[in-house]
Amino acid sequence: MNQPAGQRKRVVILGAGFAGLHAAKALRDADVDITIVDRRNHHTFQPLLYQVALAVLSPAEIAQPIRTILRSKNVEVLMDEVTGIDKSARTVNLKSGTVLNYDFLVVATGSTHSYFGKDEWSKIAPGLKTLEDAVEIRRRVLLAFELAEGQMQETGTHTPLNFVIIGGGPTGVELAGAISDIAKLYMRRDFKHIDPTSAQVLILEGSPHILAAYPEDLQQSAIRQLEHLGVKIRTGSHVTDVQPGYVKVGDERIDSVVTLWAAGVQASPLGKLLGVPLDKRGCVMVNGFLHPEGHDDIYVCGDLAHVEINGKQVPGVAQPAMQMGEYAAATIRKILRGETPHKTFVYFDKGDMATIGRKAAVAKVEWPFKGHLSGLMAWFTWLFVHVFFLIGFRNRFAVLRQWAYTYLFYKDGARIITGSRELPGWETHPQSSVTLAEDIGNRSSAA
Amino acid sequence: MNQPAGQRKRVVILGAGFAGLHAAKALRDADVDITIVDRRNHHTFQPLLYQVALAVLSPAEIAQPIRTILRSKNVEVLMDEVTGIDKSARTVNLKSGTVLNYDFLVVATGSTHSYFGKDEWSKIAPGLKTLEDAVEIRRRVLLAFELAEGQMQETGTHTPLNFVIIGGGPTGVELAGAISDIAKLYMRRDFKHIDPTSAQVLILEGSPHILAAYPEDLQQSAIRQLEHLGVKIRTGSHVTDVQPGYVKVGDERIDSVVTLWAAGVQASPLGKLLGVPLDKRGCVMVNGFLHPEGHDDIYVCGDLAHVEINGKQVPGVAQPAMQMGEYAAATIRKILRGETPHKTFVYFDKGDMATIGRKAAVAKVEWPFKGHLSGLMAWFTWLFVHVFFLIGFRNRFAVLRQWAYTYLFYKDGARIITGSRELPGWETHPQSSVTLAEDIGNRSSAA
Repeated sequence: MNQPAGQRKRVVILGAGFAGLHAAKALRDADVDITIVDRRNHHTFQPLLYQVALAVLSPAEIAQPIRTILRSKNVEVLMDEVTGIDKSARTVNLKSGTVLNYDFLVVATGSTHSYFGKDEWSKIAPGLKTLEDAVEIRRRVLLAFELAEGQMQETGTHTPLNFVIIGGGPTGVELAGAISDIAKLYMRRDFKHIDPTSAQVLILEGSPHILAAYPEDLQQSAIRQLEHLGVKIRTGSHVTDVQPGYVKVGDERIDSVVTLWAAGVQASPLGKLLGVPLDKRGCVMVNGFLHPEGHDDIYVCGDLAHVEINGKQVPGVAQPAMQMGEYAAATIRKILRGETPHKTFVYFDKGDMATIGRKAAVAKVEWPFKGHLSGLMAWFTWLFVHVFFLIGFRNRFAVLRQWAYTYLFYKDGARIITGSRELPGWETHPQSSVTLAEDIGNRSSAA
Repeated sequence: MNQPAGQRKRVVILGAGFAGLHAAKALRDADVDITIVDRRNHHTFQPLLYQVALAVLSPAEIAQPIRTILRSKNVEVLMDEVTGIDKSARTVNLKSGTVLNYDFLVVATGSTHSYFGKDEWSKIAPGLKTLEDAVEIRRRVLLAFELAEGQMQETGTHTPLNFVIIGGGPTGVELAGAISDIAKLYMRRDFKHIDPTSAQVLILEGSPHILAAYPEDLQQSAIRQLEHLGVKIRTGSHVTDVQPGYVKVGDERIDSVVTLWAAGVQASPLGKLLGVPLDKRGCVMVNGFLHPEGHDDIYVCGDLAHVEINGKQVPGVAQPAMQMGEYAAATIRKILRGETPHKTFVYFDKGDMATIGRKAAVAKVEWPFKGHLSGLMAWFTWLFVHVFFLIGFRNRFAVLRQWAYTYLFYKDGARIITGSRELPGWETHPQSSVTLAEDIGNRSSAA
């Protein structure tokens, strides 16, 4: 039952990522009732997820309960899942059975991994989208070193510590740099039998270039910085199979103790539920006002939206997501004031950056000046920007402290393994590949 | 194959809890090779586990990788599991296949929950021994509030938020106080539909007294402090059944959205593997030198040991565990020097304390003065002692910061829900028990 005319309007926001959260924040003091729905109770600061995955930060340092961020009289937060959207009745159905009415609907449920139809690969090669993903990747990477230490103690040799990262975009590059750092800087002193610095990190990228969205000089710089860390890069390498313990490129088998997926994303399935035209990745085709054509009460924001400005698609990263959320909120405020919105969404691109382990990064800066940065300077820019945008003072302080500790003193942040002690494919590895001379002599031959 | 006479002696330590860790630390500069084996890669500071469970602290703040703590030339750390001990061959078999020789064996694998033979209860009512347990308890407690909010939104009523804690020892009391704090202090402002302060916490204790190990005046004080927080206590209440959504005391059914187990512990199964006399909880009977009678090369320390001094059993808490580990190390050092140990283990009891939420606690102090403390004073003593004994500067600093933030500003620490959104028994609850008048009006009757 919709409320009688003249009552307060209702905005329903689906998803509390960058887009949804910024839409809600920008509407906090407006004369509307807002309901924001998310499957999780927390907003995750995705750009720092890889630091949780690689044990520099703890989950709670980059996540904050949505309720806490949006504590406001006119906002209500529901931890629930969307099961249906009825555009003509203007209702959203939730899994719990709740039905929400809306006057304005903001759909911002983002994207998820795409395994290009090979969903069975997801168990073997996890991707990095959620805190659970991050903790699972951390578990696998740390466990590989522990298992190798045990194997060395038992047999005198160990499976080579080859880490394979599928995909050479920003996430792949960040994971590669961070694993290399962990092995070479932080784990060095911790093991008696294995040499953690013998770990190899390989990036497999299908296209001819890593960091395809970056200008060529920064791509080249990233390659140099990665190679300096010992990371191997193979471009033009299409992965044809992912199995426990190895991946295949064409017919070539590449052994891997831990395989990570950073290759593809697809839109959240909510795009389909909307019943409007989608692009091939499942993103919702929207016009300049972020509406699916013909549905002026619906805004699609963030990764889920396919927006083109001057024929160029707006990228699926944090900045445009925040801006779209704010744009949708501003437009809704205009309509509430009885005005007719006429300004379409414009993406104000301040630049883009990817970090490559400790003290290395590339940055394409668009604002406040234009330029390409590499190395230490880019890395400091990265640090500054990411702390600045982190939600909440507590997190900012905690993360800064943790970084100071980690980067200045080479101390581990959160190298805790929780969960199972199984690694997919570990037992299938040949156990006779790396032998080290030194050993403190506690090995027994009584087996 | 044991090494020829004259070679460096080998100490194998099983378990890196308080006892094992302190034994290893005390032997770090001795002329022995040490191998410490634990199923986990980290030492957990168990006295603060309940703060992780109740979202004040993050896992990494109370845990530290064993390798990092014990970085020393003569210590090696294996993340593995013990499958057998051969006392005559002086070997320990590990799950990975590794066989360790020992000259001295320190067994300190602690204790685990006891469900008194009803192991099927463990899924419904988790206990609190590991970081995984703590994160699971956190998930359930926080999720209950979220589910109630959703239910209220949908139906206008919600299942009463009854939390039942089985067991009134220190852990039960700590969990009860902390859940009450969360509901009354931190969650108060976060929900629109439900009133988190309506949450009820009930302690069911089988014996006639909570905190049975404490003197009567402190028991009384604890009861007053708990009641002040709104916690209900029922002593002499034997739980006869634990089911999703409720527990039974005799034939009485008590509804419960989250049931937690703090009732019983039993010794780690390693006691049995030793093949020596055990007490009824599975603890190893040891003499004054912490040896199982007739096995002078084996030391059993910590919760796994049944030690009696002047006819009184040493309690299974952190202090005696640390002291036993240090005693075993000191005795081994004596033997290495060719001396014959003649001093038996003496427990230096500095006292005992249990905290009851924010700013409340009871403490029985034995050293440096004798006395009973309650309330704020006991709580500050508790804070001080626990920060002092936390392993690692980083953790101490992080925990202090987090406490300041939480206790001074009522800010949440780590209220992140990860994992599934299912709560055992939630759907079986009657959905018509609590109705609140206020509601921001976004509910729909279109269902």
